[in-house]
Amino acid sequence: MADSNDKREPEYMSSVIPGWFSEISPMWPGEAHSLKVEKILFQGKSDYQDVMVFQSSTYGKVLVLDGVIQLTERDECAYQEMITHLPLCSIPNPKKVLVIGGGDGGVLREVARHSSVEQIDICEIDKMVVDVSKQFFPDVAIGYEDPRVTLHIGDGVAFLKAVPEGTYDAVIVDSSDPIGPAQELFEKPFFAGVIGFMLCSTEGPSVDFKNPINSIDANNSCSKSKGPLKFYNSEIHTAAFCLPSFAKKVIDAKTK
Amino acid sequence: MADSNDKREPEYMSSVIPGWFSEISPMWPGEAHSLKVEKILFQGKSDYQDVMVFQSSTYGKVLVLDGVIQLTERDECAYQEMITHLPLCSIPNPKKVLVIGGGDGGVLREVARHSSVEQIDICEIDKMVVDVSKQFFPDVAIGYEDPRVTLHIGDGVAFLKAVPEGTYDAVIVDSSDPIGPAQELFEKPFFAGVIGFMLCSTEGPSVDFKNPINSIDANNSCSKSKGPLKFYNSEIHTAAFCLPSFAKKVIDAKTK
Repeated sequence: MADSNDKREPEYMSSVIPGWFSEISPMWPGEAHSLKVEKILFQGKSDYQDVMVFQSSTYGKVLVLDGVIQLTERDECAYQEMITHLPLCSIPNPKKVLVIGGGDGGVLREVARHSSVEQIDICEIDKMVVDVSKQFFPDVAIGYEDPRVTLHIGDGVAFLKAVPEGTYDAVIVDSSDPIGPAQELFEKPFFAGVIGFMLCSTEGPSVDFKNPINSIDANNSCSKSKGPLKFYNSEIHTAAFCLPSFAKKVIDAKTK
Repeated sequence: MADSNDKREPEYMSSVIPGWFSEISPMWPGEAHSLKVEKILFQGKSDYQDVMVFQSSTYGKVLVLDGVIQLTERDECAYQEMITHLPLCSIPNPKKVLVIGGGDGGVLREVARHSSVEQIDICEIDKMVVDVSKQFFPDVAIGYEDPRVTLHIGDGVAFLKAVPEGTYDAVIVDSSDPIGPAQELFEKPFFAGVIGFMLCSTEGPSVDFKNPINSIDANNSCSKSKGPLKFYNSEIHTAAFCLPSFAKKVIDAKTK
């Protein structure tokens, strides 16, 4: 249970609209998004963070880490499907995939839709996130049930250093924290309030992320337990790379 | 100034995080978006609604009608540009344009970028919205300065009934309220929380809204006073019609 001496808790729990949870983050100063709380289902403190699950009135159950909403049952599909299928549909035949973070299991669920995939490793630092997800978000944590999945509890950066280069066809970082050299990008996203991912291709043939070569709209991506895709399709894949003019301008300036 | 007997005010002013404005709407039950308030600049009650302007800490000045945020200086460009240029770039040579609502003037500013346009009529029911916008949002209300603009204070539905059919090449409804037969659509938007517009073409040649035939990326759309487009471009026009799978499904079911 939460420690009453913890100074972090009041930041997001005492300043809420009464009966509501408010996400107030230094990433988005001066604004807050709030969800009405029906009931707090879990509050704990792991070695790494505060973990909370509450039943919201209109977004289903909600997972919160250190005061930041990680997922809601209502809209988790948009995040999990896009962070997974944008990269995996952009390369011809992904076989080995590593997920860093993503302890809730949702990205695993989506990776498993790809029949070409033979091995799915996940490195999540916080076992409590895995356990809580299995208990409260079975439709998300169902990702762990795929036999191709191996869970490693540990630090993602250390894990990556220990494996030979070129082991994985794709690495998906589903982390709430800035990691190593990408820190700057994680701390200063260009589009506050909008889900944004960074996609990059390092070695091998160059990848055209904008025009997917690998469709998963086919029937084999849909199983009885996972259900059909709710958000991703090939059109929305390409549309995700169309930027408003102000964003184009920022990127053009950076790439000059 | 606000009447202390007004029972509507407490709904959104008393339930805020202290020092914050919270938008709590029956359109989006169980969630709220909040902005930190630096100073309330205007509070009034017109014949139609409560009108408020406040200085936010990170979104510039904010216009609020009956507790619902109408625009913020920081992101008004996205709304005004998209509601205007999606229709006007989809038809070959717009000459006469009617704006219903849009008393802040932002849509006028965008319509005026189109050099083919000869006449811009606006029918706004609430003169206080016009006056307040001219006072507090000069970069938005600059739309009124175009010589092609004529302002009509009155009810949009009555105005439309009084003009001969076919008078306008485009009618842009920028209204916070449901209007007549479209009420159902306004009250039950498919995508809560996402800016959504309905585009339709009635008589004349059919219009392909998805592939704009009329670009305004050219220089003549940018004047010293208005500045360049910040959001709209042809790519984002087309991308705006790419829907996530859950939304496609809803629309497919309705059009069967």
